[in-house]
Amino acid sequence: MITITFPDKSTKEFACGTTPMQIAESISPRLAQDVLAATVNGQPWDLSRPLDADAEVQLHKWEDPEGKHAFWHSSAHLLAEALQELYPGVKFGIGPAIENGFYYDIDPNGNKITADDFSKIEAKMIELAQNKEEIKRADISKADALKMFGDRDEQYKCELISELEDGHITTYTQGAFTDLCRGPHLPTTAPIKAAKITSLAGAYWRGDEKRNQLVRVYGITFPKKKMLDEYLALMEEAKKRDHRKLGKEMELFAFSQNVGAGLPLWLPKGAALRDRLEQFLRKIQKKYGYLQVITPHIGNKNLYVTSGHYAKYGKDSFQPIHTPEEGEEYLLKPMNCPHHCEIFKAYPRSYRDLPMRLAEFGTVYRYEQSGELHGLTRVRGFTQDDAHIFCAPDQIKDEFLKVMDIIFYIFNALKFENFEAQISLRDPNNKEKYIGSDENWHLAESAIIEACAEKGLKARTELGEAAFYGPKLDFMVKDAIGRRWQLGTIQVDYNLPERFQLEYTGADNLKHRPVMIHRAPFGSMERFVAVLLEHTAGRFPLWLAPDQCVVLPISEKFNDYAHKAAQELAQNDIRAIVDDRNEKIGKKIRDNELKRIPYLLVVGEKEAQNNEVSVRKQGEGDKGTMKIATFAEYLTKEINDTINS
Amino acid sequence: MITITFPDKSTKEFACGTTPMQIAESISPRLAQDVLAATVNGQPWDLSRPLDADAEVQLHKWEDPEGKHAFWHSSAHLLAEALQELYPGVKFGIGPAIENGFYYDIDPNGNKITADDFSKIEAKMIELAQNKEEIKRADISKADALKMFGDRDEQYKCELISELEDGHITTYTQGAFTDLCRGPHLPTTAPIKAAKITSLAGAYWRGDEKRNQLVRVYGITFPKKKMLDEYLALMEEAKKRDHRKLGKEMELFAFSQNVGAGLPLWLPKGAALRDRLEQFLRKIQKKYGYLQVITPHIGNKNLYVTSGHYAKYGKDSFQPIHTPEEGEEYLLKPMNCPHHCEIFKAYPRSYRDLPMRLAEFGTVYRYEQSGELHGLTRVRGFTQDDAHIFCAPDQIKDEFLKVMDIIFYIFNALKFENFEAQISLRDPNNKEKYIGSDENWHLAESAIIEACAEKGLKARTELGEAAFYGPKLDFMVKDAIGRRWQLGTIQVDYNLPERFQLEYTGADNLKHRPVMIHRAPFGSMERFVAVLLEHTAGRFPLWLAPDQCVVLPISEKFNDYAHKAAQELAQNDIRAIVDDRNEKIGKKIRDNELKRIPYLLVVGEKEAQNNEVSVRKQGEGDKGTMKIATFAEYLTKEINDTINS
Repeated sequence: MITITFPDKSTKEFACGTTPMQIAESISPRLAQDVLAATVNGQPWDLSRPLDADAEVQLHKWEDPEGKHAFWHSSAHLLAEALQELYPGVKFGIGPAIENGFYYDIDPNGNKITADDFSKIEAKMIELAQNKEEIKRADISKADALKMFGDRDEQYKCELISELEDGHITTYTQGAFTDLCRGPHLPTTAPIKAAKITSLAGAYWRGDEKRNQLVRVYGITFPKKKMLDEYLALMEEAKKRDHRKLGKEMELFAFSQNVGAGLPLWLPKGAALRDRLEQFLRKIQKKYGYLQVITPHIGNKNLYVTSGHYAKYGKDSFQPIHTPEEGEEYLLKPMNCPHHCEIFKAYPRSYRDLPMRLAEFGTVYRYEQSGELHGLTRVRGFTQDDAHIFCAPDQIKDEFLKVMDIIFYIFNALKFENFEAQISLRDPNNKEKYIGSDENWHLAESAIIEACAEKGLKARTELGEAAFYGPKLDFMVKDAIGRRWQLGTIQVDYNLPERFQLEYTGADNLKHRPVMIHRAPFGSMERFVAVLLEHTAGRFPLWLAPDQCVVLPISEKFNDYAHKAAQELAQNDIRAIVDDRNEKIGKKIRDNELKRIPYLLVVGEKEAQNNEVSVRKQGEGDKGTMKIATFAEYLTKEINDTINS
Repeated sequence: MITITFPDKSTKEFACGTTPMQIAESISPRLAQDVLAATVNGQPWDLSRPLDADAEVQLHKWEDPEGKHAFWHSSAHLLAEALQELYPGVKFGIGPAIENGFYYDIDPNGNKITADDFSKIEAKMIELAQNKEEIKRADISKADALKMFGDRDEQYKCELISELEDGHITTYTQGAFTDLCRGPHLPTTAPIKAAKITSLAGAYWRGDEKRNQLVRVYGITFPKKKMLDEYLALMEEAKKRDHRKLGKEMELFAFSQNVGAGLPLWLPKGAALRDRLEQFLRKIQKKYGYLQVITPHIGNKNLYVTSGHYAKYGKDSFQPIHTPEEGEEYLLKPMNCPHHCEIFKAYPRSYRDLPMRLAEFGTVYRYEQSGELHGLTRVRGFTQDDAHIFCAPDQIKDEFLKVMDIIFYIFNALKFENFEAQISLRDPNNKEKYIGSDENWHLAESAIIEACAEKGLKARTELGEAAFYGPKLDFMVKDAIGRRWQLGTIQVDYNLPERFQLEYTGADNLKHRPVMIHRAPFGSMERFVAVLLEHTAGRFPLWLAPDQCVVLPISEKFNDYAHKAAQELAQNDIRAIVDDRNEKIGKKIRDNELKRIPYLLVVGEKEAQNNEVSVRKQGEGDKGTMKIATFAEYLTKEINDTINS
């Protein structure tokens, strides 16, 4: 008998050789039906792989990343099996699970695969899955593996095997398909009930542009047909929310090839939106003692030699700007921190000046290949909502608490109700990789852990994920359609203060080195606006909406009153426009509902006489008639409730 | 007899051969004493040069630019005469009058002249002036001139003469000194009563660095000793107001060699000041229908090839930025207009969209030689309070009126009470130099002239001073110590709309080309802050002051109350700091008066008990005791009265 310990620390005895699937069956038939993978003593494990000693066992269902991972990994094999059957002679590269689905890189070896083949491939996958083929794991020697894949001319697999250590090689087989693989996998193909091939792309073998170009076939599968339908609907919805599409429709931003790819032009409505976000952040930051500064967008190359950025990124960045004489070299600034270090150094500093929180909406420029640019999320120039906190080591925890306050305030005001946090710490077995003293690392890591605990924040802790210069805390938000976006990083830095030889005079009258904390709750104005657009589908919260209301005169006779009403609202700092086109009121209402304007104000004879508006709220309908002043108050209250709560 | 017409159109008969000086004597002995030069039929004229026909005559005193010009031009000759006597063998280049005084470029020819010699030179000048030497004009043939200056080895003068046309060469002689000169000059050296040599500099002959380097001797003279004393006091005052000095003392901005020369770092107090100015301008611009946009700080080289800037400035600018691959070239943007043209082009435009007023606080970068950089007034990176108005030709006048409203509002709120305006028009005899149709030029020029007339603005009109692409209106302000600064240009542009092929659909449904108007009332945030600092000596108007008041507890016992008072003021948006040092109240008051903080608030037992502060206003003294809330209201009113008047 062996003793199995479950995540809740309860234990149970099983016969030696029991599989995790059998364990699941012993708990409940329902669980056995839902379970997809296991973790045994911290290692991924097949459900069908026997256990021959005491072990800690976790069982994973679809809801767990490990469950999905096994499901999609087995689906990649299923895709390969289908392709092997449909396109004889096709050769296989690698086929991993990814965040949403899986892919397989294949060498078509003369076969032609196009989008027209997708439904055929999907059908074949489901046909094979319905065979409920068992997925069998096998340990295999390196020599046997080379022979097996060599006999089939699987050159890519052979190359991979040749680099593996003998004694650690496994294969997985289902039906007529065998793959070199570490697993884990589903016990059978049976749970795969719905499949969709989503796209094709080119991919160099091993990412090396000198090697063969393979075809990457992307797909996604689900344990229920309904889930695929939901997923496809979600994709459709995501397409509708594409910030590039909305940005153009709402006239928020534009790109021009004459200015350059990845360099957004913020149009009036977009610039105003961005300014509102900036003012919102400035206000809360002011409350928390931040000091705004402004620094140039270029810096002498020496500045980045000092900071270390030039050695690390110089070659892959926008190249240096030469002056017409005097032989100077400048770089577009890729980050604001070196400039802020120079501001810290501009005067002698004392412990009384700390923490010094220097903030800047600083525009930085980083080269990206043109093929990698994407709307506002992947650009070559962007404005960070940046700040650098220069503090004493024992002030880190307090500063983390304060930054977290700001981040939570933002999430709340912008209705990002779902978020996760991750604490990234040093690899304790590899301390020499990191700069800064052991004592300081301990101080900073405990500070972050304690700060999270004090805020009641359940953060995942990852060892070895810290930057070489300090530990950090990251936030991921889930948007309205379930996608995850990284927003907000708080990063400790022991490196730049050292490189810039920053110091302050302590209460002991001795010189000390400050710690730096980097933080940018939005990340960048560009990316944040993109996320907000996709999260809200362009239906911004009232306080951010480019136009907060539109006045609709029921006929041209009331155009003057409509403009008068809009003016009165403007005097109350409400953004109102007028639709004074010569159209029927029904059409005006329909047209303006499509424009994502929060409030529609219909005005006619009665309203004009009484200085009133008839209010319709987007998504909620008629709110009755009210005095213009009352409506203005009502809106102002709605706004204040959101951003001051 | 000849008839002389005076500026007031009155006329008087004189004998033929009468000199302007004799005319002045005929009017009054006082005028004869004060007059320095004349203008005859629009030409500069010596007072001692006879008139032999009917003429329009203006007489100029010290107060007129023409009077000062003749005075300083004659003083340059006096300096040369003195140098010739003190340093035998010295050779002369050119010696013009300048805005404040004059200079003479000399080849010392073996003599050593240092700052130690200044008083000796000044004494010699006054000695010669007291000789009341007559300054005599002579017409001379080219051959005689070459011989005269050749005999004296005046190589520089000979070079100049060789390029002149025979029959138009004149010399002026006083005492033993004769100069090649067009005049006009004073009749004698007698009016020169005070002289100061101000500095020495190197200057290449004819500005060509391949020719000899000469010594430029700068000086200034006055008709009264008291005026020199006043001038020197003014210079001393200007030194105290030097914005570089104040900026450092007030912690407004800093420079760092690591970031680069001419690239200001705005420190927290400076950035906040700049932000207040920006918000002030944004608010008034919003009222006038401006739309803020945001554009990147770089642009593809092609953008500037299109705009024409690359051909004109490329070689002398920051050189192109290359990408690590894809062979693209970008330029730091030297101006915002090309980007704004691209925004105009981002959507089809109709006459209903005009005037479209695109505004941006846009940071631009222009290379300047390091030797020419000067604090915030001559930098390599600066932020323009830029806007481009795209309008129909018949909207120019209205737009000029509106821009003038904004400029007058700014001058008023910032207490620039003294200003002048200049309208720069085409040279009517050289129309082919300019782009744009005759009709459009006429329209734009009349629009500017009419707009000035409607505003009751007395503007000087200068023919031939327009840019090749359009006429303009410039403003010059006089600061508190009488120096003139150019602030605010409104420039019509027919060129960029053409180059960018901008168009809009008119009411006639045809395509039309808009006109652009460039305008930047501050010029740049950097230069404007520098001017403000020098104008106010750092004593900013209350609404702009970095700290508006400082609370001074009379002893440490009242520190808590002082902080509480400062907090209450902060809640009313008043910037208050506390001086809680353990110092005597007298010292605190003296120290803080030096800090240019508008209000000092003393607090002790009585104030703490009654929630009061004892108010002292800078320069005005005790204002009595008042409730904190009352003081806050009082300040808010003072601020609103300034910026809303």
